[in-house]
Amino acid sequence: MKWKRSERLVDMTYYLLEHPHKLIPLTYFSELYESAKSSISEDLGIVKETFETKGIGLLITVPGAAGGVKYVPKLHLDEAENTVSDLITELSRSDRLLPGGYLFMTDVLGNPEMMNRVGKVFATAYASEKVDAVMTVATKGIPIAHAIARHLNVPVIVVRRDSKVTEGPTVSINYVSGSARRIQTMVLSKRSMKSGQRVLITDDFMKVGGTMNGMKSLLEEFGCALAGVAVLVEDGHADKQLADDYLSLVKLCDVDERNRTIQLEAGNFLTEGGFTS
Amino acid sequence: MKWKRSERLVDMTYYLLEHPHKLIPLTYFSELYESAKSSISEDLGIVKETFETKGIGLLITVPGAAGGVKYVPKLHLDEAENTVSDLITELSRSDRLLPGGYLFMTDVLGNPEMMNRVGKVFATAYASEKVDAVMTVATKGIPIAHAIARHLNVPVIVVRRDSKVTEGPTVSINYVSGSARRIQTMVLSKRSMKSGQRVLITDDFMKVGGTMNGMKSLLEEFGCALAGVAVLVEDGHADKQLADDYLSLVKLCDVDERNRTIQLEAGNFLTEGGFTS
Repeated sequence: MKWKRSERLVDMTYYLLEHPHKLIPLTYFSELYESAKSSISEDLGIVKETFETKGIGLLITVPGAAGGVKYVPKLHLDEAENTVSDLITELSRSDRLLPGGYLFMTDVLGNPEMMNRVGKVFATAYASEKVDAVMTVATKGIPIAHAIARHLNVPVIVVRRDSKVTEGPTVSINYVSGSARRIQTMVLSKRSMKSGQRVLITDDFMKVGGTMNGMKSLLEEFGCALAGVAVLVEDGHADKQLADDYLSLVKLCDVDERNRTIQLEAGNFLTEGGFTS
Repeated sequence: MKWKRSERLVDMTYYLLEHPHKLIPLTYFSELYESAKSSISEDLGIVKETFETKGIGLLITVPGAAGGVKYVPKLHLDEAENTVSDLITELSRSDRLLPGGYLFMTDVLGNPEMMNRVGKVFATAYASEKVDAVMTVATKGIPIAHAIARHLNVPVIVVRRDSKVTEGPTVSINYVSGSARRIQTMVLSKRSMKSGQRVLITDDFMKVGGTMNGMKSLLEEFGCALAGVAVLVEDGHADKQLADDYLSLVKLCDVDERNRTIQLEAGNFLTEGGFTS
């Protein structure tokens, strides 16, 4: 079957979007579409311009025999701003308030479209960093970790609170959970992580950073390095004594249980997320 | 800015892929691209043909004033077969064997590309069913649930083993875990699910179906109906006394601890997943 340019563009767009951060040799496309490399290059030029104009991502061309083309998800600043402002609108609904001033966020974490946007926003910030894996603690960080990892095309590592028979041999560490200064345990399957990797850690909520700090200890235990810390919501009141470099999308500023109001503002992501606008 | 057809095709493909199962009015595209509806219809015709030829999905056109176009992810049989055979190859590696005959699968569940393929395969099977949400039990089913839910564009509901303060009021049920006939507990936040929904339940592994049965009881408790049961790996030896209608991608047939071999075969998905070819 002979492919027309219009059909190649549609199929190529699909293929690139399905394989972020993966170098695809031009011969792959020229053989698939039975088309000359020069035609494929022209196609890719059109895809590249549209991706960049619309803030879908970059199309990076690597020249040479081992070269090819790589799609790197990278949003424009305005799309990141929209995601942050939609999160703020959604999370400040007063019916989210739980006794003790806790915020109900489970539905947001269960919304695949929102998680996809959050994942792309964080993947934008770490687009040019070397990230080998994304790590989180069960349970609520898992959708965020998977969303980021899909756009960076790296595996997800899930740390647990308890060990399970289906995990095989594990490494366990104790850490101090920040606010209450309680000693807690974290467990990671030995098979889950190789040494020498650069790992991005993420979670849905960060208070003083105790859990993040626990994950950092685990990284050291496995001979791995920290690539970054990505948080959906940070507690704006807590003293981040245990966390240093992190990116947050949203900051929880105030919870008034009596008047049932929640105040949120943009986290440090928009200013420190590396947008060149 | 005036859009060329080639640019519209790339951007339209991106937009449709990002919004599965969502009806998009033609005016959305014609205003976005400042193009006549007739041009947009021609564009969509090209996208539709390519999507269908390549097994990306269907493009369903709904005529009339409230009409539009809807992308429904629907793979061809061969892509589903490839996913199943890649899963079998991956899961039969002998170093996955754990004491007690358990299978280490955590890395497969942490592979976003594989989860994306699994999600699309299951979304294909339920493409024409009414599914309002996807439900799973924490922790290991979460990546599968999110992958399916993203392609069906519905929320994910996560059932827990214990209640947490950040979940608000919960409903708790007891159920019999199949093989050991032990009484266990499942907890779901009351805010997580409205009544009257049709829910697809999913998990990474199914033995006799006790956990699935627990989720079914929860559905009844919430006044919801079962839309289907999707399992990554089923235990081929276990008597599915508690499960009736389910789709499995892979069946675990034999685990030989002494010779360290694992035997898997295709689950019932390929024959019962509703492929028409």
